[in-house]
Amino acid sequence: MYYAVIIAGGSGTRLWPLSRRSRSKQSLKLVGERSMFQHAVDRLTPLFQPEQIFVVTREDQSGLLASQVPELPMSNFINEPVGRGTAPAIGLAAIHIRQRDPQAIMAVLTADHYIRDTEKFRQVLEAAKSAAAEGHLVTLGIKPVCASTGFGYIKQGQSLGMMRDFPVFRVERFTEKPTLEVAQHMLASGDFSWNSGMFVWRVDRILAEFQNQMPDLYAQLMEVEAGFGSLDAKGLLVKVWKRVDEQTIDYGVMEHAREVVVIPVDIGWTDVGSWASLAELLPTDQDGNIFVGPYKEIDTHNTLVFGGTRLVATIGVQNIVIVDSEDAVLVCAKNREQEVRQMVELLKANGENHWL
Amino acid sequence: MYYAVIIAGGSGTRLWPLSRRSRSKQSLKLVGERSMFQHAVDRLTPLFQPEQIFVVTREDQSGLLASQVPELPMSNFINEPVGRGTAPAIGLAAIHIRQRDPQAIMAVLTADHYIRDTEKFRQVLEAAKSAAAEGHLVTLGIKPVCASTGFGYIKQGQSLGMMRDFPVFRVERFTEKPTLEVAQHMLASGDFSWNSGMFVWRVDRILAEFQNQMPDLYAQLMEVEAGFGSLDAKGLLVKVWKRVDEQTIDYGVMEHAREVVVIPVDIGWTDVGSWASLAELLPTDQDGNIFVGPYKEIDTHNTLVFGGTRLVATIGVQNIVIVDSEDAVLVCAKNREQEVRQMVELLKANGENHWL
Repeated sequence: MYYAVIIAGGSGTRLWPLSRRSRSKQSLKLVGERSMFQHAVDRLTPLFQPEQIFVVTREDQSGLLASQVPELPMSNFINEPVGRGTAPAIGLAAIHIRQRDPQAIMAVLTADHYIRDTEKFRQVLEAAKSAAAEGHLVTLGIKPVCASTGFGYIKQGQSLGMMRDFPVFRVERFTEKPTLEVAQHMLASGDFSWNSGMFVWRVDRILAEFQNQMPDLYAQLMEVEAGFGSLDAKGLLVKVWKRVDEQTIDYGVMEHAREVVVIPVDIGWTDVGSWASLAELLPTDQDGNIFVGPYKEIDTHNTLVFGGTRLVATIGVQNIVIVDSEDAVLVCAKNREQEVRQMVELLKANGENHWL
Repeated sequence: MYYAVIIAGGSGTRLWPLSRRSRSKQSLKLVGERSMFQHAVDRLTPLFQPEQIFVVTREDQSGLLASQVPELPMSNFINEPVGRGTAPAIGLAAIHIRQRDPQAIMAVLTADHYIRDTEKFRQVLEAAKSAAAEGHLVTLGIKPVCASTGFGYIKQGQSLGMMRDFPVFRVERFTEKPTLEVAQHMLASGDFSWNSGMFVWRVDRILAEFQNQMPDLYAQLMEVEAGFGSLDAKGLLVKVWKRVDEQTIDYGVMEHAREVVVIPVDIGWTDVGSWASLAELLPTDQDGNIFVGPYKEIDTHNTLVFGGTRLVATIGVQNIVIVDSEDAVLVCAKNREQEVRQMVELLKANGENHWL
């Protein structure tokens, strides 16, 4: 059986003041009338039954997410007591899925990204499933559209031919976020994809990799799995998770795993990581403005106004981002939006937790 | 007896979104912890008993203002059913005051202005009272500190000597708001004061001027006065006020009145007419910023943030005005702040009355 796992644990610091500790980026309606998490589920449901869709999230975010997608069974929400990075999250999903089907194939997907071409997205998930069935660890690579320094890259190696209209390559190596110069070279070479954080593999294959490469985590996962069905399964998870080291799946497993392949795809994928990246997704008016929510403007240009129910009025401003939430408003120069994270750090440092 | 009349009927369009139809500029806490209206009363109380202080305001603004100054008797609030300019407002106050004392002297004062030197302000009110007792219509002129095109000017004529340490001049003429060039000439000449809209006169003298120069208004005032004490005094005022023409005291009376004098004073007077003029009153930090309310900033310069209870966070912006009210936020280039009025017109034109 084919299962989908949506990793929905991030906080989305750079989307403050809309994203908060109690209201993760995934739960926000950033594009259209559905939240990022709802979009993530919507694009899966033509391919997966609700009971085949798992969600790994943090205990404190689970209720809000579950309420947004009532069609998913509550038992498919896997709640981490505390986030430990993608490796432990994926391991936890893997042992849950193997309870249902030891031969299962699992697709690891995200809720932080917007995907325009959802039909093609599902086609590549089908192709990746076929490659995974043969034992490959499949990564979905995104064909780069610019020399971004914000993503890790995957270098394509030997071609393994086509799988259902999609080319499959061995992965030669994973790279960290590059400098601009390196990114430009990689873009020009045509041999690199962005690492999207989406993977497809057999549950037994990924667990074998955990066993080989992350034996401590594997042992901890086994400890948790042994408690499944017991009265204190949750207490056991809390106890074990205190000892689990933070690690990403890329560093922890993928870089040294066997049989890793990449399928480079062009599916209109956008990382909605910041206000600027969100702005790229939304239609602009003739002055380059984007207005979400009630607004009134005089002579405003290249400005993103992300409002809610309150009126945002602008006069004679340009190249700024205005985000209005119920208890805080952000006014930020467009070319400084990466410092939103720093603003959150400032608030944290001052103990102003009610605004976090 | 000496009476003070605070004219508090304006709307303060240029201070939107803080000022609203239901919340006039006078009722706002713009400078410190007291509203403009409270400041206006505070600076009078060392000189006037509460029962000597009258307020002329609009029916729909009266409740809020009265609640801010519970020490004033409710019967001293004179409520116009609709604003008709300063001439009718002052006439209405005059007939009320003559009920108390036909020989009364009345000072006409405003609540739109900030006065730093309140001690000197009261001294000039005493001097003006003495001049008014002799039959003069006294205008308080403000010594200009720049070539402002935003005020009318008063030209000083023949000197009448000193009154309690203040020089008194005949008024040669009143002028409308000038062009910049004309304003520069007037400033250089030293013979002009700004018209502050503050006047002191005997009630019988101003009513005689109304009778001579504005006979229609005078007849309407007599009609209203005849109904004083009747059961339908308020209904009569509403009926009469429908027919009253809109007129300012400057055009309607002062320009052609007899015995008009001016006392030019330097009392730290500021017209708080717009966000920029308010900014001149408030202390700035080392980067030229003014922050009112909770804020957090990164690399922000020459910016006015007038907030309330919500957090306003700024990153990398300069020369802007941010005003945060409970249901609307304004972000405006500092050199465009005169267009706030236009923003209000836009909202009005679109029938968006809930934001007015």
